[in-house]
This record gives sequence, structure tokens and C-alpha cells, in this order.
Amino acid sequence: MLNFTFHNPTKIYFGEGQLSSIAKEIPANASVLVTYGGGSIKSNGVYEQVSKALEGHKWCEFSGIEPNPNYDTLIKALDLIKEHKVDFLLAVGGGSVVDGTKFIAAAAMYETGDPWDIVAKQVKITKALPIGAVLTLPATGSETNTGAVVTREGNKLPFASPLVRPLFAVLDPSVTLSLSDRQISNGVVDAFVHTMEQYLTYSVDAKVQDRISEGLLLTLIEEGPKALSEELKSDLNVRSNIMWSATLALNGLIGAGVPQDWATHMIGHELTGAYGVDHARTLSIVLPAVMKVRREAKKEKLLQYADRVWGINEGSESERIDNAIAQTESFFRQMNVPTRLSDVGVEGTDLENIVAKLTEHGMVALGEYKDITPEVSLEILKAAL
Amino acid sequence: MLNFTFHNPTKIYFGEGQLSSIAKEIPANASVLVTYGGGSIKSNGVYEQVSKALEGHKWCEFSGIEPNPNYDTLIKALDLIKEHKVDFLLAVGGGSVVDGTKFIAAAAMYETGDPWDIVAKQVKITKALPIGAVLTLPATGSETNTGAVVTREGNKLPFASPLVRPLFAVLDPSVTLSLSDRQISNGVVDAFVHTMEQYLTYSVDAKVQDRISEGLLLTLIEEGPKALSEELKSDLNVRSNIMWSATLALNGLIGAGVPQDWATHMIGHELTGAYGVDHARTLSIVLPAVMKVRREAKKEKLLQYADRVWGINEGSESERIDNAIAQTESFFRQMNVPTRLSDVGVEGTDLENIVAKLTEHGMVALGEYKDITPEVSLEILKAAL
Repeated sequence: MLNFTFHNPTKIYFGEGQLSSIAKEIPANASVLVTYGGGSIKSNGVYEQVSKALEGHKWCEFSGIEPNPNYDTLIKALDLIKEHKVDFLLAVGGGSVVDGTKFIAAAAMYETGDPWDIVAKQVKITKALPIGAVLTLPATGSETNTGAVVTREGNKLPFASPLVRPLFAVLDPSVTLSLSDRQISNGVVDAFVHTMEQYLTYSVDAKVQDRISEGLLLTLIEEGPKALSEELKSDLNVRSNIMWSATLALNGLIGAGVPQDWATHMIGHELTGAYGVDHARTLSIVLPAVMKVRREAKKEKLLQYADRVWGINEGSESERIDNAIAQTESFFRQMNVPTRLSDVGVEGTDLENIVAKLTEHGMVALGEYKDITPEVSLEILKAAL
Repeated sequence: MLNFTFHNPTKIYFGEGQLSSIAKEIPANASVLVTYGGGSIKSNGVYEQVSKALEGHKWCEFSGIEPNPNYDTLIKALDLIKEHKVDFLLAVGGGSVVDGTKFIAAAAMYETGDPWDIVAKQVKITKALPIGAVLTLPATGSETNTGAVVTREGNKLPFASPLVRPLFAVLDPSVTLSLSDRQISNGVVDAFVHTMEQYLTYSVDAKVQDRISEGLLLTLIEEGPKALSEELKSDLNVRSNIMWSATLALNGLIGAGVPQDWATHMIGHELTGAYGVDHARTLSIVLPAVMKVRREAKKEKLLQYADRVWGINEGSESERIDNAIAQTESFFRQMNVPTRLSDVGVEGTDLENIVAKLTEHGMVALGEYKDITPEVSLEILKAAL
């Protein structure tokens, strides 16, 4: 096991009816900005619950944070923050709203230059507004972690700081019953690939982390398709298991003390940035290709994954790995997400452009061994055609 | 899944050489009291590392905290705290030192009466000195949780408060290489039974919690005997896996959203309180008896445990449960801990006395269904003879 520091102080309220808990977590004299997306929270009752919980608090709202939150959108919140002397942000939505709110929290307190430097120049954040989160879409884990991704002019870039980690997060699985099949699919696949990025590397004999990762993968494989089925799509236990898996997939726990990959995400970001492909759908396309191209480097863990997650014990090592990759693709198809670039209209002639973007963004040494050069990324993209 | 609140803000530094991190976690102007036990930290180099890390800090020390920390010992620290205006406690030791330090932290700030009321009357703690922990013995999980157990005149009683949770914990597995076989055995068994108390109840379809618990059990079963073997007793990976398992077994994660039992612990506490049996050795005696007496109430989970932890899939339900209990006892024997009351000199004529103590301490409705009355406790004790 590698040395690590683990610290996740976000307080989690999990379960139906927990939304009222936000009242005791936000200081009574705070001036709150409620941030949200396209307005689905107004039709599913969440906006009403938030309004009720904030009764007695001074609050205003900022809506319109889009999937893959855009710098130009987010920066508009700063005027509102100044005008209302906002000192607490409440993000109500999925990972994009939480990510966007993290950027707003840092940008509002960034006084020494262009807030885009936080992302483009990875300037260290020294102050940020406090954030609370009400999660409506289980997927990214952003509700308890320090990271965020922001897009500007087709460039989708990450930043992170402990100062933008939400102080609390409300996870009410009943809220997710109103999600579309596409949102559920994307969320399950996103959480699955987050787990794989921290699991499918090389072994450092971190037995607990491996077992927890395998537990998350097994749960997502068992529960994901149920949430799309007619019989179980209203089952609250299914939604609870998916929601808790997605949070634990990226709260720092399974990544503590182990090597991490993240090449799938970095390559995927370029597909979203340049072609507008849903984040999770870039992952379901790129991950199988990474598994194929990196099968030698990841051999030991691929065999463990085949055995413990898919129960594949027979055949040669090569056959077991083939089978595990095929099962992974089959699971993605069962979740109705694409597994090939051709499924989303990206062609062989586009690949050089994607690799150029990766290079432009400094993503030239990816993966757990930092040996995925632009050439290897091209190979991965070709395998995904 | 049941509704839950999960909050564990303890910052963890894990790995060899992490002890120096305490310097940045303790305020520079703090007056620190270092608490420890019988002095093993002086022979294994930990005291020296702590001294070095505290260079530049004002600090004094309080030693002699015994296993099952005693009220009469702990209360003596209060004079030292007053004398040196101590405002930060650094617990250096195993679960007993951390538990004892939690009591000291609360007692030092308890101004409205007899500090024993914190335990005996379960008075709500409103103030406590901040605590940091340097763990030398993986077992109790106390280093990141809110609970503690204190003994007075043969009465071993628990208390808990978020205010006594350590702010940080240093987990250096190399420190555990100097432990005796008995300490390692006790630690592994303690962590194993902590997991079982939160896992072996009834199903609420909490798939992730179950998988994590099973992962901890599997890891302890795999790694525990290695730490006692000649070949692997100096293996740092083995110690790392045991240490991280023990912390995760009682940090709140696997118990969030699921029913919990704890009957084994409560009955075990009486065996320690009245007969001085090591805590873990009370658990290895009582747990198999609980499994036998409660086999109907725990049937579903016993079958899942048999399958996923021991790979037992064949035979009738009853046979599979028998087999799982036998495997559990066999594991305990492999760890050189007793599985019968007769192994520690407790006889049938003692049982009424133990049950009387349980009743005296209000432990009259134990277990996940609160239906383990003193009569059922007697039945469990008889099954453990």
C-alpha cells in the first residue's frame, strides 16, 4: 500500500426526507445563493423543499448552470454575490451544478487576477465561499470531494482545492426517481468508471481498497439495470444503492494508498469539449479501449477484476481478459450507453484533432505509469472507433 | 437502506514515516499533554519520534493508561492539565490510550459536577479538549470515532460524543511490527467482531455496506494469520492491510444505514469488567455463541456471510450456517484466541453473576431487535461454556 492522507469532512445526510436538515447546517445569519441548473428542480419538488428549509434565511438564486458548466455562465453569478453580499452557496443539482458552484465559490474570493487562472494556470486557491450541496443526480461524487471540471470555449479542464469541498451534502434517493433513463445511465456509468480509474492499475497489495472498489462495481452492475427496468425503476432501495455507490466511488476512500489512472477521463474530456458528447458516454467509449491497449500493463488487475467482479475463472489469461472486457462492454450496452466512437459520430479523421487538444491541455503523460503519450492516446482512440 | 447521517472529519495520515505530520496539525502555541500507556512507546522508538515532531511545542506527558482504562488512573491527568494549562491532548498508543484520552478531554472541561457522570449518567458533553492520535495498535477504531469505554470498580461502560473524536490520526503500520503476537491477535479479532456487529443483523438491502463489511472480514481472515506467521510477521503490507481494516471497521462507514447488534460487545464487557479477560478474547468467546443462539433471527445474513466470506454454497441452509459458525471459530483459534468461557476459567456457576451485572448496567434489551433480554443473554453465555 502507498502512503496516503485521507480527509473527507463533508457531513452526509442520506435518505428520504433529509432535505430539511440543511436548515441546521447553514448559519442563521448567512446570505445564501442557491445555484441550480435548467429548472428540473422546480418540477420535481426539490425547489419547494429547499425554499421551505431556507425559511427564515436570506437567500437569492442563480439558475442556468448547464451540463459541463461553462465559464461564461458561471462568471455571471459573481455580480449577484456582490449585490446580495452572499456568504454561503447552496448547490442544488447534479455534478455539473456542484462543480460549477465550486468554481463560483473560488472565483468570488479570487481578487488577484482573472478567475480563469484558477483553472488555466491552476493557481492555488486560498479562500472560497462555503458550500453546501443538495444532490439530485448520483454520478460524479463532487458532493463530497475537492475537484471540479469547468469548460470554456471547448476546453474542459479540472481544478481542485480542499476549500471548495462541500461542508455538507444531502443525498435523498427519492429525488432521483424523477430522473430520465439517460441521466440514470450516465450516472451509473460515471460512478463505475470512477471506480475503475482507481482500481484497474497495478497491485500494491491494498486489499481493503480493492475489495471496496469491487463492491462498488458489483453493486452498480447489479443495481444499474434495475433502475432502467419497468418493474424496479421506482424502487427506492435500488436508487439508494446507486446513490451511495456514486458518492463512495469518488470521495477519496478507494483512491487512498493506491495508484490511479484517469486516462479515460482525460481523453473523454476532449470528446465532450470538442464534440459535446455526454461525459459518461465518453467514458463508456474510452474505457474499453484503454483496457484493450493497456492489457499488458494492467494484466494482474484485469485478471483480478475478471475473477472477482465477473466470476471469470476459466480459460487462458488472455481469454479471461478478453471476456472481462467483453462483459464490461456488455454492461455498458445494457445501460444504453455507446461503446464506440462511431456510435456518437466521431470518425477516424477526427482523432488527430482530439490528440492535438490533449497535447494543448498538457495531457501528454497519462495513466498510472504516466506513459500514455499522445501516440498511445491515438492508439486508444483508434481502438475505440 | 435506513436513513443515516455520516460524518467523519478525522484527518488520517497513513504510512511509514507519517508521524512527523503531527507537527503541522497541532497549533504552534498549544500546550500539549502527551498521553500513553505502559511505556512500550519508549522501547519501540515512537516516543522519540513524537518528541522530535513536537520540538518547538510546549508539552508534558501523562503515562500509565492501562488496558481497559480506569477512571482512577485517568482522573489523575486533570491536575497536570490545570498545572500546565494544557489545551491539546496527543494520545499515543492503542485503543485504550485513545479511549482514556477521550475521557480526559471531556472530564477536563466538565465543570458542573462529578466527571464520572459523563459515563454513569451519560451526561451530554458540551466541551472537550481537542485530541490528536498516534496509533500504535490497530484494533478498536477509536482513533477516528466518537466512542470510548472506561472502567471503574469492575464496571466497564461506554460513552460517546463528536467532541472527543480525534482531529487527526497517524497510522504508521511499521510501528505495529513491535507488537506481541497477543496484541496482534486481539487487534485482528476486535476489528473482525466490530465488523460483524454491524453486518450480521438483518438485511435492509444495503448492498455497498454489506460488500465493504465482507471486504474487511476477508482481509482480516487473509492477513491476520500472516501477521502471526514466522515468514510474514515482518511484512509491512500485511500490517498496513490490518491497520486500515481496523480503522474502517469502526469509523461509522459500514454501520451507516444498517441495523447494528453490539450484544457480543455488551456481554463481553462484563467478562472483562468482572474477570479481567482481554476485550478481544471476550468477543471471540461470545460471538460464536450469539451466532448459535440467534441463528434464526440472523438466518438471511448468516447464509450471505457463509457464501461471500467463506465460499460455503453447498448443503442445507442449516448446514451452511453450522459450517460458517465453525469456520468463524476455526479462524479465531488460528488467531490463538479462546472460543469458550472454559478457556478463560469462567464456569457455569458464574453466569448468573454476569447476567446480574448486565442488568445492573441497563443492558436488558440488546441486539438489532432489542430482544436480547437477560434470559437470552444467559442462554448465549451457556452456549459459550
